[in-house]
Amino acid sequence: MAVDLRPEPAVAELARRTAEFVREVVVPVEEQHHGVARTEDIRTDLQRRAKAAGVFAPHVGVGFGGHGLDMRGRAAVFEEAGYSLLGPLALNIAAPDEGNMHLLEAIATDQQRDRYLRPLAAGEVRSCFAMTEPAPGAGSDPSALTTRAERVAGGWRIDGRKWFITGADGAAFTICMARTSGEPGAQGGATMFLVDGDNPGLKTVRHIDTLDESLYGGHIELLFEDCVVTDDAVLGEVDQGFRYAQVRLGPARMTHCMRWLGLARRAQDIATERAAQRHLFGSRLGELGMVQQMIADNEIDIAASRGLILQACWELDQGGSASQATSIAKTFCAEAVWRVVDRALQICGSLGVSGDILLGRFLREVRPFRIYDGPSETHRWAIARRVLRRHDKAATR
Amino acid sequence: MAVDLRPEPAVAELARRTAEFVREVVVPVEEQHHGVARTEDIRTDLQRRAKAAGVFAPHVGVGFGGHGLDMRGRAAVFEEAGYSLLGPLALNIAAPDEGNMHLLEAIATDQQRDRYLRPLAAGEVRSCFAMTEPAPGAGSDPSALTTRAERVAGGWRIDGRKWFITGADGAAFTICMARTSGEPGAQGGATMFLVDGDNPGLKTVRHIDTLDESLYGGHIELLFEDCVVTDDAVLGEVDQGFRYAQVRLGPARMTHCMRWLGLARRAQDIATERAAQRHLFGSRLGELGMVQQMIADNEIDIAASRGLILQACWELDQGGSASQATSIAKTFCAEAVWRVVDRALQICGSLGVSGDILLGRFLREVRPFRIYDGPSETHRWAIARRVLRRHDKAATR
Amino acid sequence: MAVDLRPEPAVAELARRTAEFVREVVVPVEEQHHGVARTEDIRTDLQRRAKAAGVFAPHVGVGFGGHGLDMRGRAAVFEEAGYSLLGPLALNIAAPDEGNMHLLEAIATDQQRDRYLRPLAAGEVRSCFAMTEPAPGAGSDPSALTTRAERVAGGWRIDGRKWFITGADGAAFTICMARTSGEPGAQGGATMFLVDGDNPGLKTVRHIDTLDESLYGGHIELLFEDCVVTDDAVLGEVDQGFRYAQVRLGPARMTHCMRWLGLARRAQDIATERAAQRHLFGSRLGELGMVQQMIADNEIDIAASRGLILQACWELDQGGSASQATSIAKTFCAEAVWRVVDRALQICGSLGVSGDILLGRFLREVRPFRIYDGPSETHRWAIARRVLRRHDKAATR
Amino acid sequence: MAVDLRPEPAVAELARRTAEFVREVVVPVEEQHHGVARTEDIRTDLQRRAKAAGVFAPHVGVGFGGHGLDMRGRAAVFEEAGYSLLGPLALNIAAPDEGNMHLLEAIATDQQRDRYLRPLAAGEVRSCFAMTEPAPGAGSDPSALTTRAERVAGGWRIDGRKWFITGADGAAFTICMARTSGEPGAQGGATMFLVDGDNPGLKTVRHIDTLDESLYGGHIELLFEDCVVTDDAVLGEVDQGFRYAQVRLGPARMTHCMRWLGLARRAQDIATERAAQRHLFGSRLGELGMVQQMIADNEIDIAASRGLILQACWELDQGGSASQATSIAKTFCAEAVWRVVDRALQICGSLGVSGDILLGRFLREVRPFRIYDGPSETHRWAIARRVLRRHDKAATR
Repeated sequence: MAVDLRPEPAVAELARRTAEFVREVVVPVEEQHHGVARTEDIRTDLQRRAKAAGVFAPHVGVGFGGHGLDMRGRAAVFEEAGYSLLGPLALNIAAPDEGNMHLLEAIATDQQRDRYLRPLAAGEVRSCFAMTEPAPGAGSDPSALTTRAERVAGGWRIDGRKWFITGADGAAFTICMARTSGEPGAQGGATMFLVDGDNPGLKTVRHIDTLDESLYGGHIELLFEDCVVTDDAVLGEVDQGFRYAQVRLGPARMTHCMRWLGLARRAQDIATERAAQRHLFGSRLGELGMVQQMIADNEIDIAASRGLILQACWELDQGGSASQATSIAKTFCAEAVWRVVDRALQICGSLGVSGDILLGRFLREVRPFRIYDGPSETHRWAIARRVLRRHDKAATR
Repeated sequence: MAVDLRPEPAVAELARRTAEFVREVVVPVEEQHHGVARTEDIRTDLQRRAKAAGVFAPHVGVGFGGHGLDMRGRAAVFEEAGYSLLGPLALNIAAPDEGNMHLLEAIATDQQRDRYLRPLAAGEVRSCFAMTEPAPGAGSDPSALTTRAERVAGGWRIDGRKWFITGADGAAFTICMARTSGEPGAQGGATMFLVDGDNPGLKTVRHIDTLDESLYGGHIELLFEDCVVTDDAVLGEVDQGFRYAQVRLGPARMTHCMRWLGLARRAQDIATERAAQRHLFGSRLGELGMVQQMIADNEIDIAASRGLILQACWELDQGGSASQATSIAKTFCAEAVWRVVDRALQICGSLGVSGDILLGRFLREVRPFRIYDGPSETHRWAIARRVLRRHDKAATR
Repeated sequence: MAVDLRPEPAVAELARRTAEFVREVVVPVEEQHHGVARTEDIRTDLQRRAKAAGVFAPHVGVGFGGHGLDMRGRAAVFEEAGYSLLGPLALNIAAPDEGNMHLLEAIATDQQRDRYLRPLAAGEVRSCFAMTEPAPGAGSDPSALTTRAERVAGGWRIDGRKWFITGADGAAFTICMARTSGEPGAQGGATMFLVDGDNPGLKTVRHIDTLDESLYGGHIELLFEDCVVTDDAVLGEVDQGFRYAQVRLGPARMTHCMRWLGLARRAQDIATERAAQRHLFGSRLGELGMVQQMIADNEIDIAASRGLILQACWELDQGGSASQATSIAKTFCAEAVWRVVDRALQICGSLGVSGDILLGRFLREVRPFRIYDGPSETHRWAIARRVLRRHDKAATR
Repeated sequence: MAVDLRPEPAVAELARRTAEFVREVVVPVEEQHHGVARTEDIRTDLQRRAKAAGVFAPHVGVGFGGHGLDMRGRAAVFEEAGYSLLGPLALNIAAPDEGNMHLLEAIATDQQRDRYLRPLAAGEVRSCFAMTEPAPGAGSDPSALTTRAERVAGGWRIDGRKWFITGADGAAFTICMARTSGEPGAQGGATMFLVDGDNPGLKTVRHIDTLDESLYGGHIELLFEDCVVTDDAVLGEVDQGFRYAQVRLGPARMTHCMRWLGLARRAQDIATERAAQRHLFGSRLGELGMVQQMIADNEIDIAASRGLILQACWELDQGGSASQATSIAKTFCAEAVWRVVDRALQICGSLGVSGDILLGRFLREVRPFRIYDGPSETHRWAIARRVLRRHDKAATR
């Protein structure tokens, strides 16, 4: 009953096997493809091998073929998966599918689960989550949502533009967030819709060329134009979309952190390897003080990130919104992971910026995490507001 | 059996009562004396009230009048005590007494416990720990130890100079670390001796004037000159001093962090209060973005420190040396606490540097923590070395 | 006609002599008094010796006994003076007297110059500048000015409260900024008044206890209560006080930077001395990589500060307001000097926090500079606003 | 004769015209090609237009078709050129050609100048500089040089491997640094050789894929194998190569800084444009405090970089080695430019990581500058060593 930081044996064992699988199976594939899987063959082959290794879909309920890990369990396992850029894809826990499974498991009807969650959890299809809009639409400020859904006979008609919709290329379905009451700028009500990928009202405008490239299915600009869906496409209840978004956002924020934390550890290992091998000015690189400082700061950043993630996961598992804890963890991790990869690259010198090793690729991949899922500034703003609100409440007592 | 971050109810309740006691009883005394207790009256009065509140000596075994908290329990309670500069003194958990009690409980003989630990745990006497020496003696590098103890009939004669011996002024006894084999520079063997304060061979050279002033009994330069002690003054076994130092150091490092973390929270509360009250350029101070950023960064630093402390405490409670975890936690906390107090002071502007509030005092008190108990550089060096050693070991497997 | 960074020979020579004077005469006095001159004897003796050395009052016009240095010349000489905490006092270029002389030379009438500037420039009297008010009065936001002056027969009556008025204790006169039109919050008009120290309407409320202690005459809270002055007490023109404040503020901001930059160099020299002497882990301290990093970062911060100061001084000497350049230089220097002193102290370890050397004192002295004369946040806000205004102007062209 | 920061009128006018040319001619081409010129057509067309605009080859002597700018003049003009990634290519002042022209002008024979410098200065051919070697060869530590040149009848035979040889693909000639006496690890003697691009002993091993891509001609791994050159291929004197490298390195280090400083200003302008246009939470983005802080910090970093560059250039123009000043400027600028681009990207949010604007590209381009031309750590080490040497010298006087 005392504080305990040791994962349950089954979780520890799954994490250990995941670590082994990633090192032995995934890393070689990742290195061969320079960190980016660009074909279905790579994806399905990796997933097949993850299934064989018994490490597939660890977060999904047992009824859907997974291990039913809670957030604390995910923290242990996803970090190991994130050790390779392709680990999450192999385990079917990459964004945005992982978050979508979480959401569907939590709020979908049985029919919707059979139709959408089951094949998704099995890796047979992929999905996406269409919330972010180009300025001045919904981004850091969700209440700016401009995409609209209006009632039509037997269903809804969705119109609006979305961008940075990860994984949309090739997705079997999209969870689309659309305004069903109120005006942009006021909160009002939003609703989530399950839109099939072949709906004629759903158009891919373009692939957005981005600094990061490893998220399978790209970042896409989508257009919903006279996009009609039937009533059973409503996910959860009408006008409750902002609330459901929170159901998805908090955990998704943390699983991002877990995966990137794994990559930070990888970067640290690559740099340590280099620091151990390379000699300069008559010493091992790793015995030079400024290099030791970078190695130590990496170690500190990694440990602090892990502690913050665990705190937030524990709160989520207790059933709270954990919004302060997830904002804190996300802000710190996004910046810490960035620092770790940057220092690792610096330790490796010219080799670090070359394609001979993967650190330049990692740097590109982790940079946007300080922006995606809420920029650091938005989170800091929210954190400070909660501190002040806490103060105001205490003061008026 | 899963990961659990909730303290046991008894610990949580003790932490709650400690928080209440500190706010209601200790803070007013602290503010009256500008953070520094300079007389025995203040100390004994505070301790009397702590006993009355049932929050005294929480770390000591029940047999010695305490609550027998393990390290995780201390983490919860000491942070609350540290919320005031005088909280640890009131609870009898201030450095160096707290660490000495821990050490005596772990390795002293029953007789030594009765003679030294019992009155110390009751707050009847104070103590000190004499390890650090002026350059080129033992400091960041313990193996440089120059103070020597040589065998004489029926005991030992100690000679050497120590400095920065916290609390030595008025201490009833000193635990003195002296070399009993080997030469300075090589590790060799050291032994711990219990030296009574009235031993004629123990002289106070001077009070060292320091930036920090709140540790009761000051920082003292001591001279051991023909300081003869009997055989029963040996604490533990001869030549095992470096090992015992580790028994004391790891936990003491963490209790420092816990106390200072409490002070960081206090600084944050003072700054938040100010940010909530003060208006500037037509807004509340706390609604200006750059102030929000400082408030948020404080919140992040506090949360990350707490996570790292807990991790190290958990490892210590499992019986490990936890040397990597305590180095990481100490380095991060010492710097984080410093940043938090510095930002809090900045938020308060001119008021912050004035004696009208305590932040200037806090800044002075926390600065040395980046040096005491191992400077950040020494810890980073040790952290990096362990990372490399881990790598080398894995590579040769 | 090309870019030239070499000071004129006469300036270079004065800087050289100032450096020599400070090292040989001032530093010993500073060390004896731990950086704080608390008596008139110390002040007058130092100034007598500065006169004898021909380095006194370098910034004042030749007609008033000085060397008539422009801002670039001051940059060279004041940095040398600032090498000791007491150097500026010795040369009569300490705040606030130095800025007051600058202001009086620029806008006072001949009579006012004879009565106020002449004895001030000679070091016979001291002065202060009463602008800052406790919240919610004039501070970061000058337009919040609440002290009022109202017309009475033959003069003005001043009422209001000021605080953090440096040097007010013992000052022969105060330059008081008071609102003569408009309401607090709107800019309106302010006027500067020369108020004699023995005016019965001028009361010293208290010495404010502050983290810094080296500015002669302390930081004082003043009360103007029915403080009547005659018409010839008006400095410059009525309602032009905010404009004159700019005349004083830009240069005063830079001379602060120059002096503190000198102190940063001193801190670096103290740390370098230590790094050269002390051995640790078998190396000179200064050969350990993390120490080298701190030494190098200090060197970089010092060089960058000097460059920014020179840029601003050059702009001021060209007759511009140089408001962007002085904001940039002040913000950077205040933080850089702080970092330098902090790193120097860290290099010196326990010795650094002890009173055996002056770094702890320096740390206390430089901290408030990030707040005094406009907190970094206010300057950053102003800098960013000017960038945006520049953009808006370019965009509408 | 006083300190003067205003460039001569002719230089100011050339800088103005360069700025205009870059904005009107180069930026559109850069945007069209996403910052990377991949064909000779683009290069020659840009250079043709630069010649027409009278801004071509500003650093080369008038006799070679340039404007003969000294280092201070280059500081003014190159910054303007660097405002676009393609500006330096257009003006024929990109690395490594610019540094090679500098070197050839300084030490080549008249014949060598006619044969190599003249067509290079005219943009008719390109060149490269082959010094860096893969580990454990010459990199941060030049004395590790392993490429060897041995005397053969009428000339020399060069053998060795080089990498990160910028611009080597398509270069008409290479300046190759090879050891002509001593052993790797000891300094010994090196010699520079002019090797024609069609020498059969010079082989391109591969294009190194790097994070940055904008330097024309790529980063190449080269193999010198039985590469025989005649005696007149020796540049300067035998065994003086390390000395000549310094002739090239100091100025080349500064011209890198100038160009990247221009790019930092561009990033700041892009971010400012965005901050001025975009609205969030009811304000202009640029009126939110955290954004203002980033804009202000950019402005500070840009100004400080410029000051440090100017100081180093002035010292170089006085004929000194300026090694401390160039190390300081290079270290600060490389990190400052990186911070500026990173903050600019952060301000732009998702747009910033997209290819819709160039900031992601800029981030990739500037990252290696913290490694190329001496990693920050090597420079800091050198800076600190010089500080200690300065101290030791003063102490023994």
